[in-house]
Amino acid sequence: MGFEAGSSRVFQIHERGKLEVRSTLPLTDRESLSLAYTPGVAEVCTAIAEDEDLARTYTWRSRLVAVVSDGTAVLGLGDIGPAAALPVMEGKAALFREFAGVNAVPIVLSTTDPDEIVETVVRIAPSFGGINLEDISAPRCFEIEARLRERLSIPVFHDDQHGTAIVVLAALRNAAEITDRTLADLRVVVSGAGAAGVACTDILLAAGIGDIAVADSKGIVHPGRDLPEHKARLAERTNRSGLTGSIEQALEGADVFLGLSAGAVDEPVIASMAPKSIVFALANPDPEVEPEIAHRHAAVVATGRSDHPNQINNVLAFPGVFAGAFDAGARAITEGMKLAAADALAGVVADTLAVDHIVPTPFDPRVAPAVSAAVAARAVHDGVART
Amino acid sequence: MGFEAGSSRVFQIHERGKLEVRSTLPLTDRESLSLAYTPGVAEVCTAIAEDEDLARTYTWRSRLVAVVSDGTAVLGLGDIGPAAALPVMEGKAALFREFAGVNAVPIVLSTTDPDEIVETVVRIAPSFGGINLEDISAPRCFEIEARLRERLSIPVFHDDQHGTAIVVLAALRNAAEITDRTLADLRVVVSGAGAAGVACTDILLAAGIGDIAVADSKGIVHPGRDLPEHKARLAERTNRSGLTGSIEQALEGADVFLGLSAGAVDEPVIASMAPKSIVFALANPDPEVEPEIAHRHAAVVATGRSDHPNQINNVLAFPGVFAGAFDAGARAITEGMKLAAADALAGVVADTLAVDHIVPTPFDPRVAPAVSAAVAARAVHDGVART
Repeated sequence: MGFEAGSSRVFQIHERGKLEVRSTLPLTDRESLSLAYTPGVAEVCTAIAEDEDLARTYTWRSRLVAVVSDGTAVLGLGDIGPAAALPVMEGKAALFREFAGVNAVPIVLSTTDPDEIVETVVRIAPSFGGINLEDISAPRCFEIEARLRERLSIPVFHDDQHGTAIVVLAALRNAAEITDRTLADLRVVVSGAGAAGVACTDILLAAGIGDIAVADSKGIVHPGRDLPEHKARLAERTNRSGLTGSIEQALEGADVFLGLSAGAVDEPVIASMAPKSIVFALANPDPEVEPEIAHRHAAVVATGRSDHPNQINNVLAFPGVFAGAFDAGARAITEGMKLAAADALAGVVADTLAVDHIVPTPFDPRVAPAVSAAVAARAVHDGVART
Repeated sequence: MGFEAGSSRVFQIHERGKLEVRSTLPLTDRESLSLAYTPGVAEVCTAIAEDEDLARTYTWRSRLVAVVSDGTAVLGLGDIGPAAALPVMEGKAALFREFAGVNAVPIVLSTTDPDEIVETVVRIAPSFGGINLEDISAPRCFEIEARLRERLSIPVFHDDQHGTAIVVLAALRNAAEITDRTLADLRVVVSGAGAAGVACTDILLAAGIGDIAVADSKGIVHPGRDLPEHKARLAERTNRSGLTGSIEQALEGADVFLGLSAGAVDEPVIASMAPKSIVFALANPDPEVEPEIAHRHAAVVATGRSDHPNQINNVLAFPGVFAGAFDAGARAITEGMKLAAADALAGVVADTLAVDHIVPTPFDPRVAPAVSAAVAARAVHDGVART
């Protein structure tokens, strides 16, 4: 096969994959072997058999995430199956380790049936301390996450939903601050009613933004449309002005455009927004509106791209969220823990806030410690901590 | 909690578990992140979506083992459940890495139902390059392994069966050699009709030992008894002399005692065996007969213990078996590959063969390379290699 120059580098670094499992103990002689393995290990097994809570202390699972995907909604590539999804899940696991010292293992599934996915994850769950769902298509992802949260007493977190939502809320909080407004002042239009659209809407509502309209490819989501269940429920809790029609109509006079789809928006539509507008054009690799164009009209612009300022990147959230949940021995990730994560993330750049610096960069070393500390504290406050 | 001195060391080294997942790539700047993760990774995903075989080259799964257990037959502890089994599986994964550079991840299951275990492993199989079944009780282990071998086109290997069998065959081949006999000369009595008993019997038959009788706690397995299926099939292919009665009766005049159970055997019984007898008393931690006593009558003695010579330890087999299977891209582990592993293992000590040195020690660095080379070559010969 022939690849272009840039590509060949990508393939080269992916040879043999991107992860390895290592022993944290030397196994170099009879004594170390007999402590870490038989016969010594039997004492640890016996202790855990008598008190399963000791597995938190004496196994690796209490800080181990399963990155679970069925490969149905991978990046912008769609349903490419479990094998093709694996490089993304390996990358995700590498990020968990590098950004928060959390171990993670990719688990890609040969089924796309929600019942089978739920049963499979429940059955392998004793191996792990948390479940990060990844790249599972909507609306299946909502049901799968809800059922797993119900069945398991470890953190379950669909990153495409909640990771995005946490970073968006942090960025929007700072965008409001830098433009001298509060969240409650803002009228928001969300483009996209998939996993990220639903979760962002929920966290923005929880954070006190009352006026949110959501649009999908057919226009504003409202109760008069024939909608699938997750969009019908979205219609119930949004759009208090009763908008109908196109996203362009909704954006006229709006304060915030939150782009979570690939649907492009033309310059005149951005120009029609309220003064000091905030444009988050997060579609990747092609933002809904080019940042250069958005800047002509908007006070604050963010994208999903690493080559522009204000990158909305999930890696600002998920490593610290799981690290904090693990630190607290959390049985679940509550809405409060997500809000706390967003507040902590926003706070990292409080002293250096600027229109082109509403979120930290992914490599800011303060991020994961700040997020994890806030998440752990909130877990205690919310009564889900074991420690 | 108070532990005695030796124990506290064991618990201390088990704190936080024994494994970690690391990235093989640096993720320290924007460029490395964009190659290993988005947007670069999308090219690798797209290529694998078009040709799944590329996952062998560009993901970690082709050299990744799932160490799968339901916790029903852990060491000598029995059915202690998945959480308590986890320290053993972590140790096993560490051994894979340390002895053969193979990555391994423990997967412990919250179900003991064979149908559910098979379905679960099939569904997570796209994440892995091989399945090592571990500490699953007999007779369920036979059905589970057989069905997984049928369903999957990656190596499936129940180590309690085949790892033990490979090392036993290697040791017995050398024990025969050092006592100037061939395998075909030997009359063997196997104590134990569980996972290891069945697999050892099968590999010894395949290696040319014609006269084998197997005993369980009720005596010699023969067609006249009311037997569960796996023992009925064992009765069909063993015991050509038609023995009935106790293991003690069978051992009179026998050449080999292969102890794979906790059933103790008294000194007079060992004394009643043929001249130059071979005693493998592998029950752990208490051998069926004390080595000191066995040595009074037997020409060659082996145990499962690390504090005696001739330790029959599975770690001599499984790391090299999987490494070799992965090197060849094997779709399965054939009977021939197991025989080749045993021959290669026996060959490692061919030049230094002695009655107290019929197998290498676990830390002999020649073992895994010799076993893996033989297994890979045999995979090609047997037509199951992909390379």
